[in-house]
Amino acid sequence: MDTMILNTMWVLIASVFVFLMHAGFAMVEVGFTQSKNAVNIIMKNFVTVSIGVLGYYVVGYALMYGTDVSGLIGSDQFVLMGSPESVAGISFDVFFFFQAIFAATCATIVSGAMAERTKFFSYVAFCVVATTVIYPLIGHWIWGGGFLSSVVGFRDFAGGTAVHAVGGFCALIGAIMVGPRNGKYKNGVPRAIPGHNIPLGALGVLILWFGWFGFNPGSTLDITSPATAHAAVTTLISGAAATIAAMILSNVKYGKPDAGLTLNGALAGLVGITAGANQISFAGAILVGAVSGVLMLLAVEYIDTKLRIDDPVGAISVHGVCGVFGTLAVGVLSMDGGLLYGGGMTLLTAQIIGVGISATVAMGLAFLTFVGIKATIGLRVEESEELHGLDGIEHGIAAYMDL
Amino acid sequence: MDTMILNTMWVLIASVFVFLMHAGFAMVEVGFTQSKNAVNIIMKNFVTVSIGVLGYYVVGYALMYGTDVSGLIGSDQFVLMGSPESVAGISFDVFFFFQAIFAATCATIVSGAMAERTKFFSYVAFCVVATTVIYPLIGHWIWGGGFLSSVVGFRDFAGGTAVHAVGGFCALIGAIMVGPRNGKYKNGVPRAIPGHNIPLGALGVLILWFGWFGFNPGSTLDITSPATAHAAVTTLISGAAATIAAMILSNVKYGKPDAGLTLNGALAGLVGITAGANQISFAGAILVGAVSGVLMLLAVEYIDTKLRIDDPVGAISVHGVCGVFGTLAVGVLSMDGGLLYGGGMTLLTAQIIGVGISATVAMGLAFLTFVGIKATIGLRVEESEELHGLDGIEHGIAAYMDL
Amino acid sequence: MDTMILNTMWVLIASVFVFLMHAGFAMVEVGFTQSKNAVNIIMKNFVTVSIGVLGYYVVGYALMYGTDVSGLIGSDQFVLMGSPESVAGISFDVFFFFQAIFAATCATIVSGAMAERTKFFSYVAFCVVATTVIYPLIGHWIWGGGFLSSVVGFRDFAGGTAVHAVGGFCALIGAIMVGPRNGKYKNGVPRAIPGHNIPLGALGVLILWFGWFGFNPGSTLDITSPATAHAAVTTLISGAAATIAAMILSNVKYGKPDAGLTLNGALAGLVGITAGANQISFAGAILVGAVSGVLMLLAVEYIDTKLRIDDPVGAISVHGVCGVFGTLAVGVLSMDGGLLYGGGMTLLTAQIIGVGISATVAMGLAFLTFVGIKATIGLRVEESEELHGLDGIEHGIAAYMDL
Repeated sequence: MDTMILNTMWVLIASVFVFLMHAGFAMVEVGFTQSKNAVNIIMKNFVTVSIGVLGYYVVGYALMYGTDVSGLIGSDQFVLMGSPESVAGISFDVFFFFQAIFAATCATIVSGAMAERTKFFSYVAFCVVATTVIYPLIGHWIWGGGFLSSVVGFRDFAGGTAVHAVGGFCALIGAIMVGPRNGKYKNGVPRAIPGHNIPLGALGVLILWFGWFGFNPGSTLDITSPATAHAAVTTLISGAAATIAAMILSNVKYGKPDAGLTLNGALAGLVGITAGANQISFAGAILVGAVSGVLMLLAVEYIDTKLRIDDPVGAISVHGVCGVFGTLAVGVLSMDGGLLYGGGMTLLTAQIIGVGISATVAMGLAFLTFVGIKATIGLRVEESEELHGLDGIEHGIAAYMDL
Repeated sequence: MDTMILNTMWVLIASVFVFLMHAGFAMVEVGFTQSKNAVNIIMKNFVTVSIGVLGYYVVGYALMYGTDVSGLIGSDQFVLMGSPESVAGISFDVFFFFQAIFAATCATIVSGAMAERTKFFSYVAFCVVATTVIYPLIGHWIWGGGFLSSVVGFRDFAGGTAVHAVGGFCALIGAIMVGPRNGKYKNGVPRAIPGHNIPLGALGVLILWFGWFGFNPGSTLDITSPATAHAAVTTLISGAAATIAAMILSNVKYGKPDAGLTLNGALAGLVGITAGANQISFAGAILVGAVSGVLMLLAVEYIDTKLRIDDPVGAISVHGVCGVFGTLAVGVLSMDGGLLYGGGMTLLTAQIIGVGISATVAMGLAFLTFVGIKATIGLRVEESEELHGLDGIEHGIAAYMDL
Repeated sequence: MDTMILNTMWVLIASVFVFLMHAGFAMVEVGFTQSKNAVNIIMKNFVTVSIGVLGYYVVGYALMYGTDVSGLIGSDQFVLMGSPESVAGISFDVFFFFQAIFAATCATIVSGAMAERTKFFSYVAFCVVATTVIYPLIGHWIWGGGFLSSVVGFRDFAGGTAVHAVGGFCALIGAIMVGPRNGKYKNGVPRAIPGHNIPLGALGVLILWFGWFGFNPGSTLDITSPATAHAAVTTLISGAAATIAAMILSNVKYGKPDAGLTLNGALAGLVGITAGANQISFAGAILVGAVSGVLMLLAVEYIDTKLRIDDPVGAISVHGVCGVFGTLAVGVLSMDGGLLYGGGMTLLTAQIIGVGISATVAMGLAFLTFVGIKATIGLRVEESEELHGLDGIEHGIAAYMDL
């Protein structure tokens, strides 16, 4: 009983930390894009939080945590009807609170990659599907008693795959289908379209980092477990290592320590450690962070110049690539069954299968959703609207009036 | 003893969340007004926090929570002298901490409605009165053992009336008495004066939402109560429902999803649920939120075009109108005695009486205060100062130097 | 056992609050300087957090909290090897988390005073030394069992000296050695170089204040102690008193309430109360705050016009001067042995000795470090780079693109 209250308090507070991540995402996306689309991005963030939470309340929670059917999907507790008083040793209300904010996070990732040329209501439609179907379905497989955890033995501590890789791979499909921003590629050569407000972007990254201390340590749902404190430290040092790694590599490659890549480096390290924050050693966390920072930078370059997919904020690289990497790293570095800790290939294999299925299904569902949206309300704004910025035409207001 | 420590920890942490709301208010007010007055707004926010806390320490706490005299006012513990070691099952110091930050919140609401044309030291004078007299007096009636709770049976869980409606109705009087900004009305037709920094305003709203998870759930003062977690969820989903409602209604009415109204929608939903966050069901919270979002939008329009009262940030609509609505909604939707839950008219009547008296007294005291200020230091800046912005003349500095 | 979990939870949460202070520092430093150097400042903040944490992990923690050698230095637990499961009644991991974030704070202070003309990698080099040697060494003397606490009887509750005075005096040396910004002094007369974004600076101050509620109350490491709640209230009211004191004094001296000084006033009060937040009375805290606000203002003026040391953000005055003052104030105002509480000169003498040694050693080590850096990679950017801003040449990007 006492432990339940302690853990309820802890997860409630952790949830509040995670909630502020939505301010972080908003500032990162605004800061890293052009001022003429800032209002549109803000609107998408507010809608994401709101739809995410309401959609998860009505449908998402039931599909994710309702009574399991064949390891595939949850089947009851729609609109939270028939929910128990407590789950996983904490108050049900707090459990729902924590989960609902997570659901909204997954969709937000997509908004960054599709920024500056996507119709507002098309994104809204995707957001509904993402938080009521895509995220809960895969979330059920991973956390809700579905087959990835129960049969495959897949492990994803705080959502390296369930949130970040799923979000990142939906973002990949979205960015491909909406196409690059006008003027982004000239004869296949990418042009840099710099963000308009680096200080706001930096504020966003630091707010995200702050929130991640709820996201990862909160995911134990158990303050009495040493894994909670462990996850706080790994989250701290993985982010730090990735920041430095990305900063140094950008300096080596481009002759200057690049701000955008350094800031995204921090996020890469945070995403990277998410899947294993509770079970990777401190040294392992530094390694995961450093590799995440490097991978992110290489992925940004590769996606931009080779694949020619336009991802204004680097969401695919940060969340998709580092989410996958971090999840696989659990198979190698987990102190509880990882390859380097005498666990053989069992866990690593499970991780490969789990992340492969999750990413594939996320992409498939995102593809179907975007096809449907494209065929109905359309995906992309008019060229003239893109040129003038989405703020005036979609929302009738400019982000900055008299600066 | 153990429970006291748990609850002390919880309220301490909730207070820290609430403290950050002052950053939220500052960013909302700055973002939604013109850049030439941004320094003035910042200064008012800092002074509000500081005077609010000190005034509450010296006088306000005593009037609000000192030994009750005839149900009307507290009478001891000035400068916290003679205060007990613990109150309401938590450490006295933490109880004071939580209450002092609330006091500062009430005054801040007024600063938004009077922005861009009020003399700095006139606002400072009002702030002193608000945090040492107006808020503590009405607060005593509602929370300090005064007649509204003890005789009338009025209920206000976290300050839908005590903080928001009181603040909002003081703001109404202030906005009327200082008059509209120059150029706001031409032949009675209002002109939109758009805010200068929507991203900062959005950041402010999200920070306020974050702080509200201390404001509402913290108001139980009791982490062992299921009402705490319940209040967190209602705060989340009421804000979400109001955001969506305001966004959709603005789209229907104006043809575009409006950013200012969507952002204020979130705040409307948060204010709306404040009075009953602990005792309104989840479905009820969505209803309260949706109606709050709609009411706020209609009130903004009505106050702007029909009443011709100039409220730059919509504070009267958000805090006043939705504060009143949410308080009345308790009489209907409270699962403990509301009209829809078999309680008859008893609670609803108490709510009507309580909110009526609170709003009336708040307006009366605010009126007297502003009359006094007008007769002495004056209320409004010179026309030329308003034209050039308050920052240069009142503070000798510009908010943005070389952008 | 239960108490250990409670305290572990509390310090974990307090650490997360403290972490957000890095966002606060970033916004204060960005807001109070010129836009052409904003990216550089952001980069320094990210590097400070990251290097601070990693350097402290590898070396700093061991020197500070490893087994004491002759009261001078810690000697084991490098890379946390051989660390115990718990320290000071909380989980070791959380203890490290809290300490590591403190270490990063100390270095950040220096970055503000040297802003707008220091080479990026020169600052990085200093940051490495500060977080692996300077801060841990003096920290060991004060908190790690070294001679200042064990022999001298020096008291520094939350780092008025260990963090702020040490940071402030390193900043003094740094600012002297790098010299004033170009155009700052003309024939010995200082020219004001106003900050470019006061709203962001204000946001930073409020975020710092928020984080200080982790910094000070968290420093008890013990939620069961009444000192924790007491420290929260003193932190609140000292900051408030200093804000008002600086605002009034600036109005008296310059005819207008100055925004920069009012905002720095809040920080001055927070620094001032840090050393004694747990043992100075509420009235004492108001006194400490008010005096800190006044001292800061006078010190800013003196350093700027008499000493002609260019400190763009006032870090020397805020952290150095008020850190020293607040530490000495403990000797007078501590309710446990202060001069005014019958303790005679014993504690005050210890405070004088402790702060004297700490500041002197900090300055000496900073001097040696900067001499080394100057002799190798150099300290200052080219004049043309300073003129055009560091952002373009050091980082190849502008902070604001299309505003």
